[in-house]
Order: sequence, then structure tokens, then C-alpha cells
Amino acid sequence: MRKINEYPKSREAFIRAAKVIPSGVYGHLGPAEGCFIPVEAFPLFSQKAQGTYFWDVDGNRFIDYMCAYGPNILGYNDPEIEEAAAKQREKGDCTTSPSTVMIDFAELLVDTVKSADWAFFAKNGNDVTTMAVMASRAYTRRKKIVFFKGYYHGIAPWTQKIDYAGIIPEDVANNIYIDWNDIEALEEVFNDNKGEIAAVIGQPYMHGNFADNEMPLEGFWQKVRKLCTDNGTVLIIDDVRAGFRLDIHGSDHYFGFEADLICFCKALANGYNVSALCGKDFLKNTISSMSYTGSYWLSAVPFAAGIACIEKMKRININDDLNKKGQLLKDGLIETAKKHGFDLRVTGALALPYLRLADDDSLIIHQAWIAECVKRGVFFTNHHNHFINAAMNEEDIKETIDVANEAFEAIKKQ
Amino acid sequence: MRKINEYPKSREAFIRAAKVIPSGVYGHLGPAEGCFIPVEAFPLFSQKAQGTYFWDVDGNRFIDYMCAYGPNILGYNDPEIEEAAAKQREKGDCTTSPSTVMIDFAELLVDTVKSADWAFFAKNGNDVTTMAVMASRAYTRRKKIVFFKGYYHGIAPWTQKIDYAGIIPEDVANNIYIDWNDIEALEEVFNDNKGEIAAVIGQPYMHGNFADNEMPLEGFWQKVRKLCTDNGTVLIIDDVRAGFRLDIHGSDHYFGFEADLICFCKALANGYNVSALCGKDFLKNTISSMSYTGSYWLSAVPFAAGIACIEKMKRININDDLNKKGQLLKDGLIETAKKHGFDLRVTGALALPYLRLADDDSLIIHQAWIAECVKRGVFFTNHHNHFINAAMNEEDIKETIDVANEAFEAIKKQ
Repeated sequence: MRKINEYPKSREAFIRAAKVIPSGVYGHLGPAEGCFIPVEAFPLFSQKAQGTYFWDVDGNRFIDYMCAYGPNILGYNDPEIEEAAAKQREKGDCTTSPSTVMIDFAELLVDTVKSADWAFFAKNGNDVTTMAVMASRAYTRRKKIVFFKGYYHGIAPWTQKIDYAGIIPEDVANNIYIDWNDIEALEEVFNDNKGEIAAVIGQPYMHGNFADNEMPLEGFWQKVRKLCTDNGTVLIIDDVRAGFRLDIHGSDHYFGFEADLICFCKALANGYNVSALCGKDFLKNTISSMSYTGSYWLSAVPFAAGIACIEKMKRININDDLNKKGQLLKDGLIETAKKHGFDLRVTGALALPYLRLADDDSLIIHQAWIAECVKRGVFFTNHHNHFINAAMNEEDIKETIDVANEAFEAIKKQ
Repeated sequence: MRKINEYPKSREAFIRAAKVIPSGVYGHLGPAEGCFIPVEAFPLFSQKAQGTYFWDVDGNRFIDYMCAYGPNILGYNDPEIEEAAAKQREKGDCTTSPSTVMIDFAELLVDTVKSADWAFFAKNGNDVTTMAVMASRAYTRRKKIVFFKGYYHGIAPWTQKIDYAGIIPEDVANNIYIDWNDIEALEEVFNDNKGEIAAVIGQPYMHGNFADNEMPLEGFWQKVRKLCTDNGTVLIIDDVRAGFRLDIHGSDHYFGFEADLICFCKALANGYNVSALCGKDFLKNTISSMSYTGSYWLSAVPFAAGIACIEKMKRININDDLNKKGQLLKDGLIETAKKHGFDLRVTGALALPYLRLADDDSLIIHQAWIAECVKRGVFFTNHHNHFINAAMNEEDIKETIDVANEAFEAIKKQ
């Protein structure tokens, strides 16, 4: 009989946290985010992590399908990455003059990412999406930005919604929103705003929350690319979430086009804190002309970790590896659902599967099933894509399918 | 005879860097910033750092008065901080559920910082200054923000200047700029914008670049505090640069008032990548209501480093220590300048001295003297405040004064 997790220490810790931290645990790792329903099924604090597992403060072990919401691509505490980071740390991390490891990392990205002629490093995905938008405005001397509805590009005011706390109309006054995959809408926007569109910004495919993830239609990106080129508009790909999991050469490469600017974070250094904006030569001087920097942006340890991460990803052929595991998981979960009479939809890239039980418009059955998986040690969340990592093995996936099976049995009883 | 530094390997590295990184080295650590003039006097890349020194790629050692532009407050690779970080790293850093070390760190900040009822963590100073402005707008349901001319609050569009690359008028449409220390101007702004000012944001004293640093006039902050309170306006202190160096309890505490929101970064964790917004209880629910997060914001290692850093700062009585060293440096430099007939102004806090040779409106003599110091192994920069750290000892300061003396001799010959 499989153990059913309980979380008394997580709850105690959360009560402590809520006293000194707004929301207790904020952001996408916290229960306020909407992906942790019913919240009592989820652990809230971890005590350690190794490979594809983490252990919560109550000692429960989880096969982790969230991977810290992306950063963990090779496994927690991967020995190669840790060794590279430790070597650099002994020399220096955040120093007055940067280490040449920054140059090595930039050269490696330029070699690796198809649309990269240069690289610029920061700390958050948000730093580089914001920089991309500002660079587009600086280069084109235009204001307007086209977004695809369902997007997430970070937390700066320009990318938030008008009804979000702290946002004023000026923040989003130049934003135009169109439907994903709607090339006619984009054509219309270009016609209606001749010479006014600074940039089109998009995720490589629509991996939004609370909705099945959607791939681009055949030829969609090629048409977007052409419209941008024809109109002197900068094409920005936000590869913060999908970057490297879809294609080590950039998600634009995966879909057969080239972005002008591409934003990376999460999987870039296996959890070490670094983000990168890469782009085309024609925008390099614009980037140089900008006032854009941060206290820790040239810290050397994350660069060393990033180099080791990209080198290992290449060596192990990360995309084949993750796709194979993602396919095993997808097939196994769908088959198990079917056996129990459920219609499980698995959408998005194989390495970033989004799950939804389609039997249930109210979300209640879906959430109940996810909760039963979590209580049995498989860490899914409700309405966000999941992440596969390279440390996960077939045994882990087999165990996941077993747990999913038990979870279906449990919800049928309810 | 003291060695005069040369930098052939730095130059070679810079040529490599410029190919793959816009500006080669961007931001405040790079030669494009304006503080590295004449650029040939300065190293551009470091190979290692320890205590109060760094060594450039040509093997030159520097007594480092920039401290990575702030983060290095206890000395590079401080063993206590490194041990605390290493212990946490073994358990986990960037994981799906955060570690309870986040709570420990928040509790310690609430205990330490006088105006902190809670703490929220991010990665950049810019993340938390932006959050402070957004929170002020959300809480007051007003738009306008008052700045003191000469400010620097990061690189988000709302805080840049209208003529900077990538900035559009909407970004700064609600900004009001007044002179530092001009309480009448602030009164006028409040009278002219009744019920419209969301926040006043200021550094604890004016530590701008390219200008002598200015302390607040007696009673200035108390009057600002009262005007904000009377008008229902949020008072934000940007303590990113001066934080902990001026006063471990917050720079507002140093000047005898309490901010509503206070922003920390740099010295918070001795170089480990973390920033914090702290604030008053009445704003806690507003913070909770905001959509504000980032990929690495709950990484545990910087929290562990931050705890160790604050505990050590308290134990060694950091403010007395830095003030004593800053006073030795100030007195020694001024006396040496005087001996050579120069008028050296040392302004700002003792732990963050801003240097200017007042004999020279053109800046040329000043820059020449700084260059001669750097070429002799004392890392100053031209038009930015410097930073004292706890690893610096009296011998280092004595050597600095000797170098300054030789540098004055050298420029007199020119």
C-alpha cells in the first residue's frame, strides 16, 4: 500500500512564513498562484533536492515534474554543473571586474543558438524580455508592441494586464493583443498601424496556464517572420520557459525561422541564477546604446554553470532524451486514463507537457486527480505545463504511471 | 619602485568580448560607463578575488575600493558566508518548493531592519524599486511619483530618463522631479497635485555620479516623512547602494525616520544574488495582491548567504568598523592631497566615499590622478562613490595613501 503524504511541517512553516512574507510563499512557487488546488494536497517547503526528486520538510519524496518551474533540466545538484560552479567560485563570483568566463559563455551561446550573433546577460527572464522591448523601441523609434493573447512575458508593468494591481493605463497604452495563430489579425494590425509597430513578441508556442497548450499552425511563424521583415518590425521570441527543452539551438530554430531577439532564462544554467538576451547583429549597437545593468549581472559562477549546462545538454543530446521520456509519460498517462474511462489531454511540447482531464469543465475532477497524484509522491500542478528533466529515468516514469493509475482509482471512489 | 600596471591580456580579452557581447563589458562594470577614463589605465577582466583584493587577468593585484560596486561588504570569499552557502547548496538551491531558509531570512530582516514588518525577495535592486512603485500605485490608486534629481533607481523604463534609448513618453509621464534637499519644492508639488502623489522615492542621501555626494539637511527627512503621511503618500527609500554600509538597521534609521518601503540589494548577501523589499504592515496585503515573481527568486543559497552575512555584520559591528576605516582613508587622502597643493573633496558616507579633486573643473586632473592610482594597484573609479569593506585593514589603507601620494607626484610631473 502506497503511503499517502501528509504535510504538518509544511503547514507549520507556512504559518511562520505568512507572518513575515506577503502571501507566505509568493509567485509561481506558492499556493496563492491557483495551481495548488486543493492546497492541502501540496507540500509547501522542501528540505532537499537531488536528481529528479525533492523531499519536502515532512520527509515526503516527490518525482518532480515542475523542475523548479523550469530551471532543473539536468537534475538537481548535477555533479558536472556543481563542479564547474565550484571551480569558478574559488576564483571569484561577483567581482569588480568581470571574469572572462562571461566571454566564454557568450561565445558558446553564439555557437549554439542559431539566431544569436551576440549575448547579453541579466538575472530574470523579465530583465531580458523588457530589454528586448526597449531595444525594439530604440531601434525602430516606434512605440507599439504586438502580443499574443495568453502570453506571459514576466512581471514588468509593460507586460502586465491593465486590471492587475499597480498597473496604470500608460504602462500598457501601446500594447496590441491578437489571438494566437491568427495571421489575418496580425496582417490587419500591420495595415492599421503602418510604420508604428516596434515589435511582435511571442512564446515559441502558446504554453499558457489554464488552457491546453497550442502549437503554431504550419507556416504561421514563417508568415509572422515575413510580416515583421516587410514592416521593419523586430521579432522577439520569449524562450524563457521552453528554451533548450524544445531545441538546443533555440525554439525559433525548432519551428524553422529566425527571431531577431530571443530571451533565455530557466534552463540556461540548471538553476544557477542567470538570464540571457541573444540577437542579431543589426541590433547590437542599439543594445550598446542602452542604459541597462544590475548589481549581480556579471557574476561569474552562473556563467560557469551555464557553460557546463549547455555542454552537457549537447553531449547527452538533450532534446532526444527529453522527447523520449516525454513520449513515454504521455502515452502511459493517456492509456491509464483511458483504462479508467477518462479523457486526458496532453498538449504542448513533449518536454513540457500540459495535462487536462477533458471530462470535466468545472476543473474539479482534474484537480482531484492531480491532488491524488501529489499525495502519492508525483509532483504535478493543476493548470501549468510540466517539465521533464534529464535525470528522470524510465523507472520514474513507470512509477508515475502507477501513481496516476491509483489516483484515477481514488477519484472514481470519491 | 612601485610596479606600473599594464593590461595586455585585458585588452585581448576585451577584443574577444566585443565580438559577442554588446559593448564588450556592459553596465557599471564596463568601460562604456564613463567612470573608466582614461580607459587604458583600467583593467577590464579579473582572474580571482579574495578579501579586499582582486587580481586582473594580467596578474596585477588591486586594493578594491569598488567592491563589485557594493556587494562585497565582508571581503570576497568570506569563509563564513561561503560555508553557509555551501551547506545550503548541498541540500538544494533553486527547487520546486522553497526552503524554509527563506522564512529564516525574512525573520532576520524583520528583526534587523527598523522599518521592516515583512520582507519580499527578488534578484535585482531594480526588481524591488519597481515593485515599490507599483505597490504604491496599487495602494493609493494614484499615479504620480516624486523623484529627487540625481537619483538612480535601476533600469526599468519608469525610472530612466526620457532621452535614454528605448524610453517612450508614457514610461515617465507621471514622474515629477525636484531638487534634493528642497523641502519647499516638495510642499509645492503636494499642493499642486492634491491626492495624486502615489509615492516619493529617494536614496537615503544623494549619492549620484559625477557630483559631490550630499547628505540630507537637518530635519529634511522628518519633513518629507510628515508630508507623505499627511498626504497619504508612500515613502520609498532606495537603500540598494547604501544599505547596511550606513546602518545595519536601515539608512532611514540612520537619519532618524521610518520609510514605508525600503529596497535592499548589493550588500545584502556579500555578493550572492538576492534583493529584498521590506516594508510596513499596512502595505503587506497590497504586496500579496500583486503579480510579481521570477524564475530564481526563491533560490535558497543566496538566502543562506544573506543570513550569514547579516549575522556577521552584526557580530563585527560593521558600521563602526567601516566608519573607522573610511575616516582613516578620508583623512589620509585629504592630507596627502593638501601636501601636494591639491584640494580633494571626500563626500558622502564614510563607508561610501565619493572623491573629487576640486582644482579642476574640466575633470582632467581628477581623472589623471585616479588613473595613476589604478596603475599602482589601488582600484578607484572616476565619478562614482567608492565602497569600504570589512576585510580591508589599516595596512591596505596605508598602502592606498602611499599610492595616492605617488599618484599626486606623477600628475604634478605631467
